[in-house]
Amino acid sequence: MMATKIIPPAEGAYAYPLLIKQLLLSGVRYEPGREIVYADKLRYSYQTLNQRIRRLANALTAAGVKAGDTVALLDWDSHRYLECFFAVPMIGAVLHTVNIRLSPEQVLFTMNHAEDDLVLVHDDFLPLVEQIQGRLTTVKGFVQLTDDQASDTSLPVQGEYEQLLSQCSDQYDFPDFDENSVATLFYTTGTTGDPKGVYFTHRQLVLHTLNAVGTLGVYQGTPLLRSDDVYMPITPMFHVHAWGVPYVATLMGIKQVYPGRYEPNSLVRLYQEEKVTFSHCVPTILQMLLTCEQGKSADFNGWKMLLGGSALPLGLASEASAKGMVVHAGYGMSETCPLLCLTYLRDEDRKLSAQAQLPTRIKTGTPVPMVDLKIIDASGNDVVHDGESLGEIVVRAPWLTQGYLKEPQKGAELWQDGWLHTGDMASIDPLGGVEIKDRIKDVIKTGGEWISSLELESLISEHQAVLSVAVVGIADEQWGERPMALVVCEPGQYLDRKILEAHLQGFVEIGRINKWAIPKQFKFVAEIPKTSVGKINKKLIREQALV
Amino acid sequence: MMATKIIPPAEGAYAYPLLIKQLLLSGVRYEPGREIVYADKLRYSYQTLNQRIRRLANALTAAGVKAGDTVALLDWDSHRYLECFFAVPMIGAVLHTVNIRLSPEQVLFTMNHAEDDLVLVHDDFLPLVEQIQGRLTTVKGFVQLTDDQASDTSLPVQGEYEQLLSQCSDQYDFPDFDENSVATLFYTTGTTGDPKGVYFTHRQLVLHTLNAVGTLGVYQGTPLLRSDDVYMPITPMFHVHAWGVPYVATLMGIKQVYPGRYEPNSLVRLYQEEKVTFSHCVPTILQMLLTCEQGKSADFNGWKMLLGGSALPLGLASEASAKGMVVHAGYGMSETCPLLCLTYLRDEDRKLSAQAQLPTRIKTGTPVPMVDLKIIDASGNDVVHDGESLGEIVVRAPWLTQGYLKEPQKGAELWQDGWLHTGDMASIDPLGGVEIKDRIKDVIKTGGEWISSLELESLISEHQAVLSVAVVGIADEQWGERPMALVVCEPGQYLDRKILEAHLQGFVEIGRINKWAIPKQFKFVAEIPKTSVGKINKKLIREQALV
Repeated sequence: MMATKIIPPAEGAYAYPLLIKQLLLSGVRYEPGREIVYADKLRYSYQTLNQRIRRLANALTAAGVKAGDTVALLDWDSHRYLECFFAVPMIGAVLHTVNIRLSPEQVLFTMNHAEDDLVLVHDDFLPLVEQIQGRLTTVKGFVQLTDDQASDTSLPVQGEYEQLLSQCSDQYDFPDFDENSVATLFYTTGTTGDPKGVYFTHRQLVLHTLNAVGTLGVYQGTPLLRSDDVYMPITPMFHVHAWGVPYVATLMGIKQVYPGRYEPNSLVRLYQEEKVTFSHCVPTILQMLLTCEQGKSADFNGWKMLLGGSALPLGLASEASAKGMVVHAGYGMSETCPLLCLTYLRDEDRKLSAQAQLPTRIKTGTPVPMVDLKIIDASGNDVVHDGESLGEIVVRAPWLTQGYLKEPQKGAELWQDGWLHTGDMASIDPLGGVEIKDRIKDVIKTGGEWISSLELESLISEHQAVLSVAVVGIADEQWGERPMALVVCEPGQYLDRKILEAHLQGFVEIGRINKWAIPKQFKFVAEIPKTSVGKINKKLIREQALV
Repeated sequence: MMATKIIPPAEGAYAYPLLIKQLLLSGVRYEPGREIVYADKLRYSYQTLNQRIRRLANALTAAGVKAGDTVALLDWDSHRYLECFFAVPMIGAVLHTVNIRLSPEQVLFTMNHAEDDLVLVHDDFLPLVEQIQGRLTTVKGFVQLTDDQASDTSLPVQGEYEQLLSQCSDQYDFPDFDENSVATLFYTTGTTGDPKGVYFTHRQLVLHTLNAVGTLGVYQGTPLLRSDDVYMPITPMFHVHAWGVPYVATLMGIKQVYPGRYEPNSLVRLYQEEKVTFSHCVPTILQMLLTCEQGKSADFNGWKMLLGGSALPLGLASEASAKGMVVHAGYGMSETCPLLCLTYLRDEDRKLSAQAQLPTRIKTGTPVPMVDLKIIDASGNDVVHDGESLGEIVVRAPWLTQGYLKEPQKGAELWQDGWLHTGDMASIDPLGGVEIKDRIKDVIKTGGEWISSLELESLISEHQAVLSVAVVGIADEQWGERPMALVVCEPGQYLDRKILEAHLQGFVEIGRINKWAIPKQFKFVAEIPKTSVGKINKKLIREQALV
């Protein structure tokens, strides 16, 4: 260790730990009257939010929750979720945000693996929990979350959430403790093996939040988030804390709208009624918003939309932009809390028309402050930043999960030599702009060359009759692998193999792709298989292609 | 200690420490071509800044500096200062930013007390250092900083800064180390006793910077700082790192202009030529900018100016606003890194005219995120937030100095029961807005009542013939203390005691002040005595009043 100068604190001095409770100080002070809205059901002020978080802390304590315990939550995106983001970690417990889209067997696996002590469950998920209750090995109690009228249940519930809160005091003196205490836990839904538990500490969440406030607010010509924005998440709160933005919005005192269950027409209506100005979602959801009944006729002018989770095709970005949306791409993953990269527009980019800005906006973006990011080859050597050469992205930042819960081997595979290995293949341009070309496992190896399935998907999606597309590599005797494309046709349009071959041949002629990148097979389908979080399920597509 | 859940990291995982080197990652990536400007002498790009910081690290290492050593810097505000802000802490050493306005004896005291190892000294301060050289007890070497032509010196200098940099490689692999290592050190210039050494760690500076990026960028209707701003500090870099803003600007990739020696006409010219949009200064400097030859005829439209150090009188704020400046008040002190509070404009404030916003803008402001702030009475009890009741401000935040260097007793006076005691008397309104009324030692106790000298100064300054004013309490047999006012008259205007008594009587009639707050004495002077950092020297004024 280097002999730097370290001075013990003076008597009485206080080394302020980084705790989630500190994220709640400023929003309430800045904008005590700003609203938290839960769909059409409830609205209250920041001042009330502050009181309700204290009531909830008392209710959890009364229900027997102690520091170090784990509280599971099964709910739609709601004000309750926001309250749990704060109250559960603030009493020193761990919040397990249960992925409600998993199968009952997987939910059971995660709840036992997490060693959940108390379960907060919305009426809609009572059947799910009732079904697995007998096999839950650590749960000691249940609390019911009801929107309208409480459903009957065979679970031995201790009470209903609102009722319990109303019985509790709104005074609670939140303790200080080690900033490295685990605050949240959720499970990633890999396409192979059991779900893996990703966890974040108070310190990591505070640092991710502080950095995101500056990153979202400052760099974007039109800042993505300002104090007078209205925020509505459209990525589930069970998944990486809705990308961490609820913490950011609360710190800033921004009006927040939680939409409940995602239904595209209701989301568009909420956007209109609550005057939402900032949201984030995956490309699949964006497409639903644009094509649903309510969305077709809606004016999305000025709706700032951060896209992540998978690459944003140019065609889709154009459609959104044509309807007035301001799109930005972000990059991150469950294990990275998630923010790593974000669209950065330089002066020269901002001078371009909205349409001309799109190629920059849909790129993976530039690493945000505090993120140390590089690409490496298979031997671990740095790959040059020429905008062409591919390497795996590896990262360091102060908010990366330090392992998978109770899976030391998987943790050691994620982390190698002090760098988190993302499994994403990218190039970096000389100015530091990152462009993800593919997942390591989704790169198609053909005739000794690598073809990026994402790039092919993007080119195919530019055809006006293509609604959506997925490309995978399938085994080929001659070439090793060859690409295969699954295509969904726009309603009322016609497509066949020859049309798309001719479309891609155009890109061959201008040197954008090589001839052998043209898929050997096109399959026209009604829907692209998706994972529980809305990503293209390439594993399933490959399996089905073999049948 | 509470039994929260703490999980050891996976094998190979990396717990990213908070180090100043990480503040340098993003600006260079975002805006490699943006400029760093040193007055009329030098300009270069962020890419060059990055290389020069590495050259400097090599030069310091070659000069014998090791981790834990202390490097003293005596310079005007310059690109070199910015380079030292990064390179010295980044090699694990401590940067002592020497207050060049202190007397030679005090400079000597601080340099011996800090145990400086290497001294970087600008030509203009060679006579000062030569004078004390024989009594420097720890210094092992000197480096000369030259703008134009090197002065002759009797110091055994190892070389000139630019020359040493040009001989060194621009490659340096900065090490990681404990984030609690001391990074910077400077001395506060109290009005009594020896200067006290205030120090900040890497962790504290990183957290202050991350928080300030969001705070300055997001909350202000017109954000104080954006990526496309042009920044010029007008508070010295030796004093609390120019309020920490150079770190903020570098992280964001903002164009930075360093003005060298402060001369009002040159500052205004630099503002005009470099298209500066954001600066910060103390009220005294603001007044100089408005009244100097170049300033009188200048258009300051859109120049965002953060005021701190002492209260901003409404009269001065009005003058600045009338010339187009956008003024904001901040509050902090040397010991707090410094940012604690900042003007916060709510929606209803932003709807007002620029003039009508001023009373809000000149207040102390609202505590920024992560700052836990309260007012207490003499017994340590919390004082109510009614906007009237006075108490001493005590604070917690992750970036407060943990003591004074080698002064455990003074450190324990600063910190009591885990709260840093600011010595400032304030009220807090029900929405959390803080208004400093005075320093504990400057409150005037008269007839059993407290009178705020700052409030009196503000009221007197509203008279159009008043250029500046200072109020102190002087002993009075009947009342205990009575206020005395020192007044500087606007050139070409007339003032006497009766005029000002009538002016204040107006405020008595509308209930703003009590009758006994009207000063017993007015002294009309050519200049108000100031401390070395430009604050009103009330101690000296009181002493002179007794003569």
